[in-house]
Amino acid sequence: MRAINKRKNTMGQSSIFNHRSIRKYLPNNVDDALLNRILEAGIRASNTGNMQVYSIVVTRDQHLREQLWEAHFKQDMVKQAPVHLTFCVDINRFSHWCVINNASPGYDNFLWFLNGAIDAVLASQNISIEAENNGLGICYLGTAAYNADKIIEILKLPRGVIPVTAIVMGYPAETPELTDRLPLEAVVHFDTYQNYSDSIIRELYSAIENSDLAKRLIAENQVANFATIFTEKRYKKTDNQFFSQKYLKILEQQGFMNNF
Amino acid sequence: MRAINKRKNTMGQSSIFNHRSIRKYLPNNVDDALLNRILEAGIRASNTGNMQVYSIVVTRDQHLREQLWEAHFKQDMVKQAPVHLTFCVDINRFSHWCVINNASPGYDNFLWFLNGAIDAVLASQNISIEAENNGLGICYLGTAAYNADKIIEILKLPRGVIPVTAIVMGYPAETPELTDRLPLEAVVHFDTYQNYSDSIIRELYSAIENSDLAKRLIAENQVANFATIFTEKRYKKTDNQFFSQKYLKILEQQGFMNNF
Repeated sequence: MRAINKRKNTMGQSSIFNHRSIRKYLPNNVDDALLNRILEAGIRASNTGNMQVYSIVVTRDQHLREQLWEAHFKQDMVKQAPVHLTFCVDINRFSHWCVINNASPGYDNFLWFLNGAIDAVLASQNISIEAENNGLGICYLGTAAYNADKIIEILKLPRGVIPVTAIVMGYPAETPELTDRLPLEAVVHFDTYQNYSDSIIRELYSAIENSDLAKRLIAENQVANFATIFTEKRYKKTDNQFFSQKYLKILEQQGFMNNF
Repeated sequence: MRAINKRKNTMGQSSIFNHRSIRKYLPNNVDDALLNRILEAGIRASNTGNMQVYSIVVTRDQHLREQLWEAHFKQDMVKQAPVHLTFCVDINRFSHWCVINNASPGYDNFLWFLNGAIDAVLASQNISIEAENNGLGICYLGTAAYNADKIIEILKLPRGVIPVTAIVMGYPAETPELTDRLPLEAVVHFDTYQNYSDSIIRELYSAIENSDLAKRLIAENQVANFATIFTEKRYKKTDNQFFSQKYLKILEQQGFMNNF
């Protein structure tokens, strides 16, 4: 049986509990020593076999950031934030090391895309938390997967390297409210997965469905309910299928689908 | 040109810089209030469209943990640690919510596997850091991807749910040394990707190649060099290909490959 409890206030001082995605930035630069410290936090993350099959591309050049802004669907924050970090799976470096040691690398397959993607994201989250610990703000760009081909071109990523996610970073020019989340018991299962009845789903989503944000978006978009915002406006099936096909093709081109 | 500098000491007090994977645990349980706080830290992580398309299965039951221990290639720590967390992509919950709202979900494709995998890993790293902030130790289990089929069976994961990674958690019974990493400049590229010459690769890997760990493993395994440990002993091409094929098949079975 699923226990639905009232959310307890467990907020602490840790910046983890205060994370907001920042979409407006001051023009101030991030100094090199601080950036270096934040990047060091990134590489301290766990990684598969300590092989570090990922790379981080730190882009501060304005001309390149404008090209990245286009690849990320021209979101304002991408132009504003002084630092742009692209997190990539990278089997190129490790395989190169194997080859010059007469060892035959076998990492050009889906398993190592997945291992590298996990490692790249662990590093990105360490970097995000350490940035926030030092007064900076960040925002994740899910769009790295959508236009991976353009990003590969802009950042000159060779075969064996593919972008997975990206963040922008800088000093915040806004202090947004903490965003809502589903109750913890919606996301967490104890011992084994507890599947959901219709009524449980309704209960778990009721606060989000009745939020001011949901009401505003329903009115603005003239749709029947909040779920329709996602399925018809934001993340439509045809787009999802298009970008799935595109990314799988890029995975093959970059050399991650030699599974046989 | 790639600048290779001596590593500066940028270690701070933050637990991020002190992370060690813990492979030996005390039998002490993790109390519910602390576990709850750690899980709350997890769901504060960024996620795609605030759709939270992931689930966390927290397994403390000993019988189930023994089954998980088998699925994770019988690594001792999996039996020892009192808490086992499996991080899964989950489009089942969100799609269910869409359906009962007469909205047609279109998330059964590779893009949403990737989005969910990123979100699950962001949550797992928040959880790992908050656990360490509170005196606990963790270890990632890359093996979640290897035997995803067995984990699906043990944890009763329905269609629309697939494990991506897992961690064990508990009070440490060891304090291992900090593990080596490649120099920061091996993993970080400025502005665009700077590909590596043979001599740069040799320089970047020289400390790791000449480490006591490398020397010990080369002697124990009677191989020519450290790279061969990875290609011939730990992560062999045939194994990589086998587990790639297996995971891709499970992705299809669980409903993430309807890309057309």
